[in-house]
Order: sequence, then structure tokens, then C-alpha cells
Amino acid sequence: MTTTADALSTTSTEQLDEQIRAARTAYERATEVPPRRRAEWLEAIASALEEHAGELVPLAQQETHLATGRLQGELKRTVFQLRFFADEIVRGEHFAATIDHEDPSWGMGPRPDIRRVNEPLGVVGVFGASNFPFAFSVIGGDSASALAAGCAVVHKIHDGHYALAVRTGQIVTEALRAAGAPTSLFSTVTGRDAAQALVDHPLVRAIGFTGSPTGGRALFDRACRRPVPIPFYGELGSVNPVFVTEKAWTTRRDEILAGYANASTMGMGQFCTKPGLLFVPAFDDDEVTDVLRRELGTKPLTALLTPNLREAFDTALASVRALPQVDELISGDDAEAPRPTVLITTSEAVREDTTVLEREIFGPATVIVQYRSEGELAELASLLDGQLTATLQAEPDEQLTGLVGVLRDKSGRVLWNSWPTGVTVSYAQHHGGPYPATTAPATTSVGTASIGRFMRPVAYQSFPEGQLPPALREANPWAIARRVDGHRTQN
Amino acid sequence: MTTTADALSTTSTEQLDEQIRAARTAYERATEVPPRRRAEWLEAIASALEEHAGELVPLAQQETHLATGRLQGELKRTVFQLRFFADEIVRGEHFAATIDHEDPSWGMGPRPDIRRVNEPLGVVGVFGASNFPFAFSVIGGDSASALAAGCAVVHKIHDGHYALAVRTGQIVTEALRAAGAPTSLFSTVTGRDAAQALVDHPLVRAIGFTGSPTGGRALFDRACRRPVPIPFYGELGSVNPVFVTEKAWTTRRDEILAGYANASTMGMGQFCTKPGLLFVPAFDDDEVTDVLRRELGTKPLTALLTPNLREAFDTALASVRALPQVDELISGDDAEAPRPTVLITTSEAVREDTTVLEREIFGPATVIVQYRSEGELAELASLLDGQLTATLQAEPDEQLTGLVGVLRDKSGRVLWNSWPTGVTVSYAQHHGGPYPATTAPATTSVGTASIGRFMRPVAYQSFPEGQLPPALREANPWAIARRVDGHRTQN
Repeated sequence: MTTTADALSTTSTEQLDEQIRAARTAYERATEVPPRRRAEWLEAIASALEEHAGELVPLAQQETHLATGRLQGELKRTVFQLRFFADEIVRGEHFAATIDHEDPSWGMGPRPDIRRVNEPLGVVGVFGASNFPFAFSVIGGDSASALAAGCAVVHKIHDGHYALAVRTGQIVTEALRAAGAPTSLFSTVTGRDAAQALVDHPLVRAIGFTGSPTGGRALFDRACRRPVPIPFYGELGSVNPVFVTEKAWTTRRDEILAGYANASTMGMGQFCTKPGLLFVPAFDDDEVTDVLRRELGTKPLTALLTPNLREAFDTALASVRALPQVDELISGDDAEAPRPTVLITTSEAVREDTTVLEREIFGPATVIVQYRSEGELAELASLLDGQLTATLQAEPDEQLTGLVGVLRDKSGRVLWNSWPTGVTVSYAQHHGGPYPATTAPATTSVGTASIGRFMRPVAYQSFPEGQLPPALREANPWAIARRVDGHRTQN
Repeated sequence: MTTTADALSTTSTEQLDEQIRAARTAYERATEVPPRRRAEWLEAIASALEEHAGELVPLAQQETHLATGRLQGELKRTVFQLRFFADEIVRGEHFAATIDHEDPSWGMGPRPDIRRVNEPLGVVGVFGASNFPFAFSVIGGDSASALAAGCAVVHKIHDGHYALAVRTGQIVTEALRAAGAPTSLFSTVTGRDAAQALVDHPLVRAIGFTGSPTGGRALFDRACRRPVPIPFYGELGSVNPVFVTEKAWTTRRDEILAGYANASTMGMGQFCTKPGLLFVPAFDDDEVTDVLRRELGTKPLTALLTPNLREAFDTALASVRALPQVDELISGDDAEAPRPTVLITTSEAVREDTTVLEREIFGPATVIVQYRSEGELAELASLLDGQLTATLQAEPDEQLTGLVGVLRDKSGRVLWNSWPTGVTVSYAQHHGGPYPATTAPATTSVGTASIGRFMRPVAYQSFPEGQLPPALREANPWAIARRVDGHRTQN
């Protein structure tokens, strides 16, 4: 366990091995725990975070440069998420408990009694993201869903908010201890060697990751190459295109530009769902530039999250700006807290060189693509890589079946006249998408459905009632939602 | 499309590319089809198979040497499965449709209207297995579930039953055509080059596979190495251990031996769920051998499925027989239709060299492991690799929490006083398990849950009613099962 926040200490592989073994023991001790008890552990963490908000938010502000209000909101979301998951596991939806009673007249021949339930995977490795120091870090979505599933978590701290992460880890560990959870159910590690060893360790059964396409792919490959491969739930990158129809552009151009300026600069454009591409009808007046400049001018400026990220931002921006048919509509600057840049190109140019469609510029810069005709949009969308989100700005009466079909195929979430940066935590949320948006397009890292990633079904055939796990007993002692002989029972 | 059954023709990669593109077009044409219509396509295939049973079963018998009764049962199961899936998609459980209405008072801040539904992946590649020429081949579980999900299927024919596969493919294609499904929604390919190109093709979005650990791992690695990796649902190998308690052994030894002899020789031991390891208390009388020899003597003998499989069987059996502390309890022979072999060893030997626990002998041979004390069982079980199944033979009043816990962790299905060879197709079935049993332990290749493997969630945010897919419309036009604001609605 990392205990000092004074220096960037790193976990040795021996120490990591010890922590993972301890986590495995904790996981095993917790397997028989009823969901109500596990929910109390999540609640204990939530309360502890609330209690320490006054300490954590300034620490986060200091390390990430993100605004206090934004960080308070993020912490609120993180706390809400823990309580929401606590409620969900008491309902028991995540067990997907399914019971088929013995049926001698079953169509293919006599059916034995067979019952299936999701069981937690074991020890899970979670990598913290730099851009959400609470919601996608130490006790963010991946850790919360893994704990809710019944797993133990070994969290790899992101160096970008090291002191905050160490302190958050201590608070989580102490809250779990006080709530009576097994020791080592949650712990933190640091450093690159520990990161790789975490992915390789035989007792680690899944990885949750949010980060860069390059780093993420390297770890995904590592997880696949193991003697026993494990699932790698990686969120890598997304340009989050926005498509504005001709009619919407005519009807409410300035409103759309304001929304876009706002969404693309939130948190200095360091959101995985930042809209990075805006497809609009070709325009040749200066009003657009004026509106955008005015809107962007109202946004607060801060330094980027880390020096590494700043370097990557400068490189990505320079590479896109250098493309032959890309121009600068609004120039940013090289200040420590850089003003936003808006580049502009055309649909013809994008067809000739698709770099603009593929390259995420993580930070305060976006690209406007001017199209000649709305009929081009579905084809342009088909040139995109996999996305977390894709947004339509259209009028209510417009029929966009073709374009919606392509966007559904390309992304995890499609939005209509809204902006992708607010990702609500709910039952229906899906924060995922085809590669390279994520390495596991069938899964989400936000919302209750994220819990199931860290579970695996096991079927019990012809088991006596007393030997069945409680979730599958006839009497349904946990009063959870189940499917019995094909029919849903209400919880 | 393969059209001749006269010779082992192979599909060129150009031809494969053409088929995959045609499949993609068919998939796109079918995206708007309501589940009731898709169910009719499955029903049409089911009826066509029934209609051609008189032709297909003898063809299968000729190529696989499996008994006619067994093949008739397998075809019945395959037909049942298609109809069962048709019923399931009309209920709509596979959509996992989830609706969260707008909620201004949502705990983390105002929630927009957000709705999630599973969408089919696109074109799926399915590899036929040699040992179930109907149920895990051309239109077996993988193909049926992919079609039920809304995908198009390109099926790689197994050379072991080439003529049957070609003919089955023709029947399926014709049934789909007659039912009005888009052309090329289903097609077949042959040959090793086509197999590899199928895994590599950019338009292929998932692979279903049942086969050997070596071949399966090679294709899994290939799927992971793609620029855009795809899920590889591979079922590779399993020894399916059976644990007999001291009490059960004392109470009903002969019944257990009879059940074991039966299950381990079904289909000449060429079942993925064949019990290959029997853990029993140490014995030194000849009665056990006599009972086993008598039971095994009643089983019909046939040649193995293919010359390749026979060679692999001989090699695997020889390698296990050659282990220092493994003896022969009952000798088989080298006949074309070989008599079953039973090897015997001890728990001490197994601890020293775990090969016996790891090596699947696919065919009519099994290993008995004698233990000294029941207390050893949980530890012995912990030495096992991932399994499709693990079986307990115990008395009703026995408490085996420790052992059951290990078996749950090691396998996909745990059985109590039954045998793993009958895999019922139902809602609760889980035919899967930790690696190397499968490459995707969270998924099943049997039962209604198998449909979801070929789907991916997409969320729709703030969409107007008319633009939403029917599964998510407020009016629920398909009358499917959904979860609305956290609560299940009955279908």
C-alpha cells in the first residue's frame, strides 16, 4: 500500500504480488457476503468521500488545475455513483439470476433443474484516468462497479494527481475497514513496472482502463498475450463528431455554435466525450467566426492536466494544423493556459486525407468540416473510426434514418440536439463504443450495466436447495429480480 | 457459395471477400426487420431441417460414424433451438431495452432522456465443430444465435463432415430465400485460407468457434492482433472432472461407475463435456475394475470422427499413459473402432505432475484419480485449469462449501449427482467457462443468453419518439420486455 504522498514512490513487483494475493484472499472472504452488506461498504466509502470533500477538492484543484466547481460536481457524481450501485446490487439485477425448473416435457427432451447466476471474477486491476481525478480514478466508475460486483480492486494510481490518489486510497481503505470489509479488498499501487505486472499477474482477472490509444492498446495486447488472457475494458479515444443539418444551421446557427463552444472547452477540452469535429454546411461569412470567437472568449482558461498531456496536445494540434487543406479559423496561443484553437476544412479535403477524422486532439482545439450538401453526411460518417458518442443537431421533423444508421454503427451513444459532455450515471447509460473508442464495445464504463463487466455466469445443475447460492434458492432469500422459467419476477 | 459436395473445394480469398460484402449488405437490409419477421426466418430454417431429416441424418452418419439415434436427437435439438430462439427474440429479452426518462431531480444532477438497446454486430464468422455435425456446426448454436441477434453469418465448413455441411448450407440458404430474407444473410466457405481471412476481414465483427485448444488459441490471437480487434467466442478444451465423496462412494459406488462409464463413452467420448477425470477414494479391490469393464463392454464402438482426431487421440492417450505414476486399469485397443481405455493414478502423483489434470484426451479414454482423504479435494480442484463443467457425486446431506467454491471458480457449470454430457438448451443454461475451456468466459454458446454475444448496446440521448428504434419507443410497438426507470416491465 502506498502510504506517502511526499514523492512519486513506486510499487515493486514483489510488493505488488503481495497486494494482489492479499486482494485475492479478501475477495474470497467476501464471496458469501449478502448484497445488503456489500452495499453498506459502498455507502461507507460514499460517506467518507463526502466527509473529506473539504480536503480532497483543493488537493485535486492543485494537481489538475480543474475548476473547484467542476471538481465539486465530479465528487458529487462519484458519491452518487457509489450509492446508486449500492441500491442496484440490493435489487440484484447484476446477478442476472435465472432459474429453469426441471421439465420432463421440454421440447428437446427432459430438462434438468438448471440455475444460472453471475459470480464476481476475483481481483480486478483498475487504471486511473488523468482527466477525471474522482469519477474515473481511484474510486471512480471502474473501481465502484468492480467492488459492487463483488471483486477486489488493485488500483494503479495516475501520476497526474498522485497526492490526491494516495489520499483517496487511504480514505477508501479506512472506510472499508471501519465498515467491516475484509482487509485488502481495495489497495493502490504506483509506477510503470507495477502497471505492467498488474496486467500480467495470474490472479488478476480483468482490467479497467481509461487513457491514451497507444498506452491502452499496448496494455490490451498484453492482456491478450497472457497464457490465460483476461478481458481488458479500455476506453482509448474518440473525436465525438457533431452533424448539423442544413435546416438546423439555418434555424439556430448561433445557438449551436454556442453549445459547441461550451462543450468543446469544458475542462479545457480534456473530456473523453469532447465534441472534436463539427460538420456544418459551407459558409463564407465572418459572422460564424465572430460568434465562435465571442463564445470561446467567455470560457475560463487553465493549464492542462499534466506536462505530458500538454506536449501531446501541442503535437496533435500541430499535426492536424499542418495538413494541406486545413486552415485556422480561430487561433489559440502557446500560453501555459492556452486559448482554444478552431481549425477548418472541407468535406472534399477530409475524403482525400482522413487524418482529421481519426486524430483526437485532447485539449482545447476542434475542427469544423464544411460540407456542400447534407446528402454527404452519411458517407462522411462512414469514414469515421469507432466513437464514444456521435451527435445530431437537427430539427424535430427531419427524417435522418440513413445518417442515424451509420452513427449507430460507429458509436456507443447517439445524441439528438444535446451535447455529449455530460454523461449521466443511470440504468440506460452506455459509455462505450467500437474500437478505438474502447477495446470492449459490448461493455459500458458508466451506469449500472458496468457492474456486469466484472462478473461471469455460472450454472448449477440439479443442485439441492441448501447447496445453491442464495441468489438461486427457491425461497429467494435476498428478494432479488430473477427470470424463472422464462418469466421475469419483480423484485 | 460452395455448391458442390463432390470434392473438398476451397473458397478463394477473393470469393470470401465477395461473400462477406454481400453478407454485410444483407445485414444492413435486415436491420429494420421486426423480431416477429426475423423469428419467421428461424422457423423457416427449422422446418426445412425437419423436412430434410431423412436426407441429412444418413449423410451425417456416413461422414461422422455417429449412431443414427444420436444424430436424430441432435437434429431435433438443433431444430428446437431455432424455434426456441425465435420465441425469445419475439419476447425481446435479447434487446435488453432500458429506458430512463428525463429526471430533473436525479441525484447527481438533471438526467436527460436516455435509452439503450442491443444492436446486432454485423457480419459474424462461425466455425463448425467436428463432433456435433448439427448442433455445433452449419446451423448450430453459434449460427442460430447470430441470426437471432440480427447478424449475417459466414460459416466455415468443417472438413470432417463436408458433404453434410454443404448440403445443410444449401437447405438453410434456400429456406431463408423462400421466407423472404435478404440474399446472402447466410453462406458457407471452405478451406484453411478462407478460415484465416474470415478472422482478418474488416467487415467481420465477431467469431464463433468450437475446436482444439491449439487451433482456437491461434485464431483468438489473430482476432486480437487485428487493427480493430474483434471478440472471439472460442470453446477450446475441458477435462470435466468428477469428484466423488467418500460417503457417495460407499453408498452407491456401482451406480456412479455405471454413470461415469456411460457419460465418458457417449459418442465415443467425443463430447466437449465428456467427464475425463474421476476423483474417488483409494480402492484396492478388483470389483471396481470388474464393474467398469462390464459397463464399458456394453457400449457400442465406432470409428472416431476423423483421421486427424484419431491421431490426436492416440497421441494424447500415449502421452498420459507414459506418465511415471499412471497405470492402466482397463486397456483399450488399436482397432479402427477402439475399445475405451481407463487409466489410474493417485492424488500424490497428480500433485507432482499436473499433466493429467491439464491434458484433454478427446475420445474414449479417461483417468481415475484415487485420493487418500476427502479433505484433499478442494486443493486438488484448485490445481485444475478452467473447465466447461465440474461434477459432484455426493449425498444430499453433505456440506461441501469449500469444494463447491473452488469448482465455481474453475468452471462454467457445476453439477450435483448428474452427468455433464447432456447440455440442455434453456434460459438458464451456461455452456462456457474460464480459459482454456473458452476464450470468453463471460459468454455462453448454448441457451438464450448466447444471442447477446452478437450484439452491442447503443444509447440514444434526447431522441424524438419518431427517430428512436421501435424497441425504445414510448409506445413499445413490439411489446417487448424492458426496464423503465429502473423497473422491469412484463412482456
